Amino acid sequence: MTNIAILGFGTVGGGVYEVINASRKKPLCEVNIKYILDLRSFPEHPIGDRVTNDFSKIISDESVKIVVETMGGDTVAYKFSLEALKAGKNVVTSNKAVVDKYGEELERVARENGVVYLYEASVGGGIPIIAPLNNCFAGDEILRVAGILNGTTNYILTHMQSDGKSLDEALKVAQELGYAEADPHADIAGLDSARKIAILSGIAFGKYISYNSIPHIEGIENVTSEDIALADQLGCVIRLVAVAERVGDKASILVAPHLVGKNSLFHAIREAFNAVSVTGSAVGEVVFYGQGAGSLPTAAAVCGDIERVISNRVSDSERVPCEEGFILNGDGNSKFITLANGKKYRYFE
Amino acid sequence: MTNIAILGFGTVGGGVYEVINASRKKPLCEVNIKYILDLRSFPEHPIGDRVTNDFSKIISDESVKIVVETMGGDTVAYKFSLEALKAGKNVVTSNKAVVDKYGEELERVARENGVVYLYEASVGGGIPIIAPLNNCFAGDEILRVAGILNGTTNYILTHMQSDGKSLDEALKVAQELGYAEADPHADIAGLDSARKIAILSGIAFGKYISYNSIPHIEGIENVTSEDIALADQLGCVIRLVAVAERVGDKASILVAPHLVGKNSLFHAIREAFNAVSVTGSAVGEVVFYGQGAGSLPTAAAVCGDIERVISNRVSDSERVPCEEGFILNGDGNSKFITLANGKKYRYFE
Repeated sequence: MTNIAILGFGTVGGGVYEVINASRKKPLCEVNIKYILDLRSFPEHPIGDRVTNDFSKIISDESVKIVVETMGGDTVAYKFSLEALKAGKNVVTSNKAVVDKYGEELERVARENGVVYLYEASVGGGIPIIAPLNNCFAGDEILRVAGILNGTTNYILTHMQSDGKSLDEALKVAQELGYAEADPHADIAGLDSARKIAILSGIAFGKYISYNSIPHIEGIENVTSEDIALADQLGCVIRLVAVAERVGDKASILVAPHLVGKNSLFHAIREAFNAVSVTGSAVGEVVFYGQGAGSLPTAAAVCGDIERVISNRVSDSERVPCEEGFILNGDGNSKFITLANGKKYRYFE
Repeated sequence: MTNIAILGFGTVGGGVYEVINASRKKPLCEVNIKYILDLRSFPEHPIGDRVTNDFSKIISDESVKIVVETMGGDTVAYKFSLEALKAGKNVVTSNKAVVDKYGEELERVARENGVVYLYEASVGGGIPIIAPLNNCFAGDEILRVAGILNGTTNYILTHMQSDGKSLDEALKVAQELGYAEADPHADIAGLDSARKIAILSGIAFGKYISYNSIPHIEGIENVTSEDIALADQLGCVIRLVAVAERVGDKASILVAPHLVGKNSLFHAIREAFNAVSVTGSAVGEVVFYGQGAGSLPTAAAVCGDIERVISNRVSDSERVPCEEGFILNGDGNSKFITLANGKKYRYFE
């Protein structure tokens, strides 16, 4: 039996309970959720009696091997993650804000304390991408990582095309369906995608990169129904694509709406789905596709990390930069296409 | 430095040399190919001096930690793999025939000798699928694994559609381009796909399943240009899909041409590419896409396994059947659609 604590019993934290509770496979079915940290109480919940608002109880309980951080935010979540690692507990998180801002420090503290800091769920929801990037491309030089990393904007762009809606109309439907938040700025402006490509490119290129240092972050605010119709005439769809690629000794990283032609699998990514494309010098292009958000998919990724910790099957989190002089650059290899209305878009293939 | 031996210096074995030679990352750049076992000699090759035809030299050299089996066939390749494992050497292979026929025994012998038998490259070429199936879905019950697992037939079906070619004509082009072998029977009849789905479903469902026990293996022999045109009128393409799914306490496994609608990402899989779809109860559908064959993509997968061995980051290969009474069954959940010419096809979604 492995004792864990869940910090934050919201959408993802609740999903982690659901997945563990339903699991019939070792080692996950032998995981015991000993504590749930939340300021709210859950009297009706089957394990509502495990809820505490006292983090020190969790830190001082030596039987707790893994702390699952599903709180969100980057202040208390960071503080508790750091304390847990320093107390010799492994930390598993879905919190991309903390990974982006403090990942380098938290991974270092984890190593110093003989534990791990894992964050598969922070990018692409249920899509396994961090572990494969760490584990499966080891023999290969990664030339490019690109992704449709934000479900909200992909849902909006899909429905602007299929229903002829304006951005505002499609956004409203997305909000009604729960695909978009009340304040959709981070999604629409490309900041959510930027955080995720920063995490992915950091692993791919062996450097910690914060989204703050990405030179070009462009959202979908200026994409119009007309653009989408004109793109369609060229056999293209418009997608918000985050691209990180090697250009000589530079890493070019950007987030922008792209025209995507039929030869790319990204052309077929619709609704709120995510996809990540990884191009290696030997393996060529590999694409990972799935649900980029949602309670159970994200929780499944968290539980995959929990299983990795228990099975002691964790990739070395230390990053070795591939080259000296690896400089961020936003120009990249972008090709541009001008639509009939004069607007220029980057082209993704 | 890690000493390895490559058995069979053909397409894949040669690719393994290429990938290791080009690698600039640890631990792969520190791998030393100490022996190459082949009956041919390669006097012009940069490491032609490492070639031997004496397997006993490799077995008796205690400094060899990993044996890479890229010979093909299921007789000598099996015998040498078994001997290597018994001599306490890890074995990494791309040989699906041996994995299908002897995987259970070889994994057991590996465990008994404290080493591993890894075969990421045996399914889907460069697509990381075995490792994610073992590692990333640990928290989840896998409901279905399905795949376009054979590049030759997918190339043929794509070009029957795009160029209006007959099966024989498209096959001839595929052979000229090196996508199809001189004797294409194993591909066309679905046997290659069957071997691969047997390996995948064995991992997904926790049982060893040989392709011989798959109750329904149907190839593309009877797919006509007319069928493809009629399917197109329904918004579908025809693809050779291998499907393994849980139906109650049974596993339904089959290989057959399917009508694939636009809502499935398989609709967009063209040319000689492969794709694998994994559906988990929590994570939903996840799809992995890439080059299913070829020297460098397959070698990249082999090298990923080599790296896992060196980094001691290998999933436990022991399979725990999820349920008692897990019985093979070919009926599955197949839905059928009848084309305008009266022919019935299974439908994949």
